[in-house]
Order: sequence, then structure tokens, then C-alpha cells
Amino acid sequence: MASLPRPVPPVTRPADERRTLSGLPLAASYGPADLAARGWTYEQQLGDPGQYPFTRGPHATMYRGKPWTMRMFAGFGTPDDTNRRFKFLLANGQTGLSTAFDMPTLMGYDPDHPRSLGEVGREGVSVASLADMERLFGDIPLDQVSTSMTINAPAAVLLALYVAVAERQGVGPDKLRGTLQNDMLKEFIAQKEWISPIRGHMRIIRDMLGWCTRQMPQWNTISISGYHIREAGATAVQELAFTLADGIGYLQLGVDAGLAVDEFAPRLSYFWDVHNDFFEEVAKFRAGRRMWAKIVRERFGAREPRSWILRTHAQTAGVSLMAQQPLNNVVRTTLQALAAVLGGTQSLHTNSYDETYALPTEDAATLALRTQQIILEESGVAAVADPLGGSYFIETLTDQVEAAAWEYIHKIDAMGGIVRAVEEGYPQREIARAAYEFQRQVDSGERAIVGVNKHTDEGDGDGIPTLKIEEEVERDQVARIKAWKARRDPAVVAARVAAVRTALERDDLNVMPPILDAVRDGVTVGEISDEFRRVLGEHRDPAYL
Amino acid sequence: MASLPRPVPPVTRPADERRTLSGLPLAASYGPADLAARGWTYEQQLGDPGQYPFTRGPHATMYRGKPWTMRMFAGFGTPDDTNRRFKFLLANGQTGLSTAFDMPTLMGYDPDHPRSLGEVGREGVSVASLADMERLFGDIPLDQVSTSMTINAPAAVLLALYVAVAERQGVGPDKLRGTLQNDMLKEFIAQKEWISPIRGHMRIIRDMLGWCTRQMPQWNTISISGYHIREAGATAVQELAFTLADGIGYLQLGVDAGLAVDEFAPRLSYFWDVHNDFFEEVAKFRAGRRMWAKIVRERFGAREPRSWILRTHAQTAGVSLMAQQPLNNVVRTTLQALAAVLGGTQSLHTNSYDETYALPTEDAATLALRTQQIILEESGVAAVADPLGGSYFIETLTDQVEAAAWEYIHKIDAMGGIVRAVEEGYPQREIARAAYEFQRQVDSGERAIVGVNKHTDEGDGDGIPTLKIEEEVERDQVARIKAWKARRDPAVVAARVAAVRTALERDDLNVMPPILDAVRDGVTVGEISDEFRRVLGEHRDPAYL
Repeated sequence: MASLPRPVPPVTRPADERRTLSGLPLAASYGPADLAARGWTYEQQLGDPGQYPFTRGPHATMYRGKPWTMRMFAGFGTPDDTNRRFKFLLANGQTGLSTAFDMPTLMGYDPDHPRSLGEVGREGVSVASLADMERLFGDIPLDQVSTSMTINAPAAVLLALYVAVAERQGVGPDKLRGTLQNDMLKEFIAQKEWISPIRGHMRIIRDMLGWCTRQMPQWNTISISGYHIREAGATAVQELAFTLADGIGYLQLGVDAGLAVDEFAPRLSYFWDVHNDFFEEVAKFRAGRRMWAKIVRERFGAREPRSWILRTHAQTAGVSLMAQQPLNNVVRTTLQALAAVLGGTQSLHTNSYDETYALPTEDAATLALRTQQIILEESGVAAVADPLGGSYFIETLTDQVEAAAWEYIHKIDAMGGIVRAVEEGYPQREIARAAYEFQRQVDSGERAIVGVNKHTDEGDGDGIPTLKIEEEVERDQVARIKAWKARRDPAVVAARVAAVRTALERDDLNVMPPILDAVRDGVTVGEISDEFRRVLGEHRDPAYL
Repeated sequence: MASLPRPVPPVTRPADERRTLSGLPLAASYGPADLAARGWTYEQQLGDPGQYPFTRGPHATMYRGKPWTMRMFAGFGTPDDTNRRFKFLLANGQTGLSTAFDMPTLMGYDPDHPRSLGEVGREGVSVASLADMERLFGDIPLDQVSTSMTINAPAAVLLALYVAVAERQGVGPDKLRGTLQNDMLKEFIAQKEWISPIRGHMRIIRDMLGWCTRQMPQWNTISISGYHIREAGATAVQELAFTLADGIGYLQLGVDAGLAVDEFAPRLSYFWDVHNDFFEEVAKFRAGRRMWAKIVRERFGAREPRSWILRTHAQTAGVSLMAQQPLNNVVRTTLQALAAVLGGTQSLHTNSYDETYALPTEDAATLALRTQQIILEESGVAAVADPLGGSYFIETLTDQVEAAAWEYIHKIDAMGGIVRAVEEGYPQREIARAAYEFQRQVDSGERAIVGVNKHTDEGDGDGIPTLKIEEEVERDQVARIKAWKARRDPAVVAARVAAVRTALERDDLNVMPPILDAVRDGVTVGEISDEFRRVLGEHRDPAYL
């Protein structure tokens, strides 16, 4: 790659060496000599905010022009429960919606499936039918909000349900703003919530790229997600590298399907984790924008500036929250949120301090939202774009993070791309190694976690209020889906399912239109996912074969 | 002044102008052109960490070599109550002690004085006698800790008590490490806890500078305090300017008394507030070091680098804490603490979230301490000195803050110095104007305070546990001081008090030795303060004359 930065040579290196969480070496201080030593220039490495390579941010005036979207991930119980939480968050100043689905929905099972037992509505909201989706967004005009849906394996079905609900509100798909996670590569790398083998899912994503490009010009079709990669134990550098490699995979998928890169690249967005190492996280956001700009422009030949821009959601690190001394999590989340903002995120979820215990209570979720509001409205940090730009340390660290991430990407390129690398288990092994090393450092006390292996209390885990999901939720959702299925015309359902099956079987058909027709006529998430299982196969974790 | 920086010209200025809390204008972004436009150079404006003018910090490796001291301000009830809190904080990883005295002690009244009624031990610890001071530090070896005492008008007496307690532990004054606030100029500017007119207090401080320079080489004689100036409503620029002007006043006082500047300047330290405007606070710490280095070296001709260095304690802004939605204060304190660390503080107190209600509970104080520990041990920000150094924005803001502060200092010079300026009420009026303007912005909604004038809840101020001071505290302290006084030899007491009076009356005597003799023989804080009142006069606030 022509634009590969030179390796970053250390200029000063004292005996007492420190490293970032990714293991990058840190000097005791940095000065102009550190930049000069590697021929660093403002024009090449930075450019102004809103200018290629967008290191300093996607927009010239950043948060002055457009504050980040405060988007709290929320979902539990029945669609009505979550609808109430949505309205509560909107009333408290949240600016975007973000939906957490329960495990059965994520895995493509209806509430009445035996595998759903005990899981319905427990860690997210249960959505299986058009009626469920309609209750979830009841009284929320879908042309007025931006909605994120964290769904992957059955993402096509949930998107179809959302489009169908919007239709019933009189809102066309072209008016819908939001983001579907729909990132199956990271499921195979880290999160492990799949239905079929990776190439089957890539086929569906290919169809969605085509359909959404034409039908949903304001919708982000894939949220290329580093979050789960990081939460599985990756370092910041690995998160950046594997996620960008996934992005390259999706760009290649679209191009191979005949789309012009400038048609669909602007509708790919990113999703980063924000962990404890404050400056490394800031550097990661900045390096990520610079790398993606180079990838889209130089490797894929995109000509439109809006194709080059990495726009991102961010979430503070769930794994960094500790059950011990839970209010310490407010401190951690505040620091992480600030890092995301100084890194230039477009959207942010701040974790609630009680999330190591259960789903967030209203009070804890409100405090997490207030954290963002205080940063935006009281701290003054949003007044100036890329406020840290030019810092000798930040610029050096940004270059270090970038150089280390390119190394991984080049290895993946050499393997034949990310799909092959994932099938061979390469990123999975690298992450496992990093996770093991981190845990070793914690266990040995080399790495301090306040309240856990240092500054511990006797009164640990003292009772804080937690959110309880009532057992009625599951009984209610099971009864509802059974009644829903019973009310349908079996012949229509059979025809709709058959049309989905045919599209899945024939590579020259797009699966989205028949899925949309099916959900309009009452076919459920589980039923369409069953067709994925039948036609594309069922994937099992090789670790358990 | 030869080293006056050039005024900072704005390079870009969009329509949507923002300002810092001090009212300094902010561009939407900053780049190399902003530095070039004013001839900024690394060597002149920054220099490496640990090098003149110390913009980047007093030490080359900063927190790697020496983490900041975690010093939680604590004091309530009887000396035994506070002694227990001291030990609790030390057991939880605090690294320095900091004593809050009650109002009677601060004003120089014993607990049995009619003016002390209802105030004994209420907002700090009650200390009137050698026995009280001995209980306060019971089982704490004074050669092992560094102690800060927030005491001003009767500071000479409390210092004498501390020295006397150390003697009884077999520890000489040369072994004592710590800081006495002893900053009467800021009392007249902002805090208003005085005994005599300003020139009387300056006389005592002059004697303390002389005595401590010879007897207590590891002790900071004055903690020149911006904190109370800021809390009274000053802007960051005013805090910086008036506090440095006070520092100039103390340097002049010592020099006029015949001390060599290099003898006593290294024992003056500073104390900053850390308010909400994140980057302006970082800039204030950095500009302050640069300005003080110039003042001590260029204006006072100091030759020793250790004289040039501004070392500082910092405390997060008490006035920024809100009673509404009290856990929001954890977020504010975290951001402020981070700003102090990025600014390069040597010592830090983090406020507890419950301090708008009462003195901090143990749990709230622990969380505040954990906030510092998470920043030091988890966030990685302490690994690199002056991590923001070189940022186009931070360097521009540092120059802006400095230029605006010099303007005030030059006005005060023109008035004949800070003592005259204070007598004429100049800083007081400037602060009142800033406080009024801030309140106007809050009242009009121009300036958001989360939970107060924006994002408000119905369930405001919902019950959090608070610390209650029992009425027995006052009864107990009154009984103790009466018994203490009754046990003494009246002739010895009278002779000791007379010696103090004579020293106060004669400008050629140093008051410290007779005060030390007096407290050793049982004379109390109130009794010696009475001599200040008799000989130096009683000061009354001109606002109430």
C-alpha cells in the first residue's frame, strides 16, 4: 500500500518503560523531535478536520455543527417494556434509539421454540413478529428518529419488520434513518451468534447491500463492529485491524456483486469499543479514520469524499465494569466517554454502572446518559474539533497504532482476505492470546484494577438496586406468538416461506423482497431463520465439534 | 515585563463563536497556522518537561517518577473523629493528610467562646490546644506523613501546635513535611476569614517566612490559593492572575524582610481549583507554571531552578457540585480530576459527591479517592509527561489564558501591588462582576447545568446518606478546653501570653518563638488570637460597616 506510514522509531526511551494496553511502548515524554524524526507532516498525517484523510474528524466544525448522537442501548422484556424505556430515554434527552434483542431473537428462534426456554426477554427485547415490532415502536414516528438495531444472523428479517412497521405508519424505507449491525464477520471472529456458515451469511449481506443501496439511502446497512472483538479480549490494535479487515471484506463483497463502491461505501458505518487506556483509545479513533479513508480511496478507488469518511458509534467497555465497588464504574465510564468524544465519535452509548449485575435500572441508565450530557454541555470539550490534534504524544501514538494495525491487515491480505482468515481461525487465535495475556497480568497483579486486585474493600458488591425480569414476560410472549401463528392463513404463510426458500437457493435472486413480503403476511423471525438453516446450513462452533 | 507573550490573534473565527468559562474566544479548530501566526516556538513557550519555563511540568518524567499525592481534605467533629477518618483514608491508599478545621478554629476562637456556639466540629475539626492537636495525629508518626493544614488567620498558632506535637514524638521541625495554607491575601480577596487588618497578618506571615526558612526546610510555608478565589465566583483567568499577584506579594514581603529569594521561594506552593471547563483548566495549570517561572526568575532574580518551579495542590470545584441528581457529581469530579492530572498537578483532593449536602460520608470519600486511583492506575494517562503538549488548541489556549492573566497583574502592579489593590477592593469587585455574569448565564439558561436548569428530574435531591455531626461533639470539646485551661499554672500562661504580645508590638522581634513557647505551655488558639486582636486590631468587612 503506497500510503503505508513509516515505522515509528522511538526517540527517547528511559529505563522505566511503560506500554499501552495494546503493548505499544511509551516514552516518558514526547516533543517536536519525535515528529521530525519520522518526517511527520500536518498535510499528510492530519489535514484539517473534515479533510482527507479525516484524522481530525469527519466534519470541519465537528460537534459545533452536529453534536454526537446520545444513543443508549436498551431492550428487555416484552416490546411494551422496551417501548416504555425508549420513551423514558427520549424524555430524558437521548437523541437516538438503540435496540437490544434477546438471545432467541439474536439466534433466530421464536419464543415458542424449545431453545428459547428461559431466555425470552431476559437480556434484550423479544421480537418475533410484525406485531412485536409494532409494539416496540408504538407511538414513535419512525421518520422522526434514528434507530440502531443490534442484530446480525437474522438481520435481514428484523430490517424487513422495521420497514413493514414504517409502511404501516405511512413512512417509506427511503425516509428511515438508522443502523443495522448486520456484521457477521465479527460474529465469527468474536461474538459467535450465527445461524449458518460464514459464506451463507455473506450471501444474505450481499443481497442487503444491493437492496438497501437502492431502497434505503439514509440507512447504514452494516455497522462494522469492533466492540465485540474488543470485549472478547482483543487489544485496541487488534480491534482496529480486524474490524477494518472486516470492512475491506464487505467492500469487496459489494464490489464483487457489481455495486459501485461510491454507491454503498457511504452507508457502511463503524462501531468501536472504548476501553480504559485513555490516549490509546483516542489514537484508535483517529488512526481508524485515516486508515479507512486510505482503504476506500486508494484500494477501492472511491471518488466521493463521503465514501472515504469513517463514521462511528462507540460504546464504553462493558468488560471494564467491575462488580466490586460498583460506583467506580461511573468513573470508568466517564473517562471512556470522554476518550470517545476526544477521538471524534458520531454516536455514543455509555454503560450503566450496574451492568455487571443485570440489565440497567432506569436510575443507572439515566446517570449514564447524564454523563454524556455533562461532557457535551458542561465540560466545554465539544467546542473545538480534534482538540488534541498536534500533541506530540497523541500524534506519535496515532501513528504507532496505525502502523501496528496495518501489520495485521497485511497478514490477512496475504491469507487471501478476511473470510479465509476467519475460516482458518487466525483473528480468533490472536484475540485469545491477547485475552490470556491480559488475564495473566491481572492475576499476577502487574495490572491494577481498582477494587478488584488493588484497593479492595471488605464490603464488596454491596447491594445496589437491580432490574428484575419477571417470569410473566416469557409466558406472555410465548402465548402471543402462538396466537399470532394460529390467526394466519396457512396457505399464504407456506407460499411466502417457499418464496424465501427459492431466493435463498438461487444466487441470482435477491432475498430481501421475498423476506419483506413474508413478514408483511405474518411470517416470523424463527420461521425465516429456519429457511436459512435449511438452505444455507447450520454452523456449529468448531471448538465444540 | 520583558517576557510578555504577544497578544494571541485569532486565525479562524466562524460565525458560531464559543467561549471558555473565562470568556476567551474559541475557534472551531486549530492548526499549525495558529501557532505560526504568533511566532510560537517550542523552546520559548514550552521547553521539555522539567525545564524552564516548566510549561510542561516541574519534573522530566512527571508521574512516572513521582505520582501526584492523593490528599483528601478531611476534618469534622472532635480530633478523635478526624483521627479515625485520617487512618481510614491512609488504609484506603491515600498518600498525604489534609486537615479541615472548624469555623471557630479558623477564626481564632476556642470552643468555650460565645461566638463558637453551634459551630464546634461542624464543618471541620475543632483544635484549640496542644492536647487537641496531639489527639488529631494520635498514632500517626509525623516524620512519616506529609500533612496539609488549611488554616490562615491563626496559622502561626496551628503550625506551632503541630511543631510541638512533633517534638513530643521526638521529631524535629526540620523533619516535618507538609503545607500550611497561611494565605491571608486570598482571605481578603475572597474567603473573608480574618482576624486583623491585612497589614497585621502580613507582619505575622513575614515572621513565619523567616522562621520556617531556617527551621523547617521541608515545609511549605504558604499555599498560595486560587481555590477560594475561584469558588467565590472568579473566572479561571482571574483565579490565575490574582493568585499569582498574591504570590508576588509574598515574594516581595520576604525580600523586604531581608530574605534571599532563593532561600524561601522554593517553600512557597500553590493551590488551584479545577472547574468544569476541561481544557481551560489544563491551560491554566500550564500557563501558571510558565508565568511563575518568569516572575521568580526575571522579576525577582532567583538563580536556583527549584525557586522557579510552581508546585501545586489542586481540588475539584466545590461550587460545581449540585444537590440535584447528586451522582452527576461523580462525573463532574472525574472530569475535573483528569484535567488537574493532564495539567500536571503535584497533589489532588477530589470532592465527594455528597458534599453539597454535608461533610462527606466514608463511602462517598472512598469513591472520590477511588476516582484518583482509577485515573492513576487504570487510565494510563500518567505514563507520559504533559501528554497534551504541542496540541495546536491547548497551546493557543495556554497562551490566551496567560496573556489575559498578565493584563490583570499589570493593572495590580500599576496600583502599587496586591496589598493596595486588595485594600481598594479591586480584585473583589472583578470577582463579584464575574460571579454575577455566571449566575446571569445560568438563570437565563444560556449556560446549561445538567439536572439544574436542563435535563431536570422530578425526583430531585432524592435521599442519599449524609454525615451527621452529633451535638455531643460541641459539649465534649467545650468541657475539654475548660478543664485544660483550669489545669494550667496561671502565672506561666500570663507570662507566655505577654511574650507573644511584646513580640507583636515590636517589629524587630519574630513572633514565632514566643508562640511556640506559649503553646508548649498550654496557651490556646483563642488566647493567642486574642493577642492578635488586641495588638494588630480587629478587621471588619467593609461591606458591613
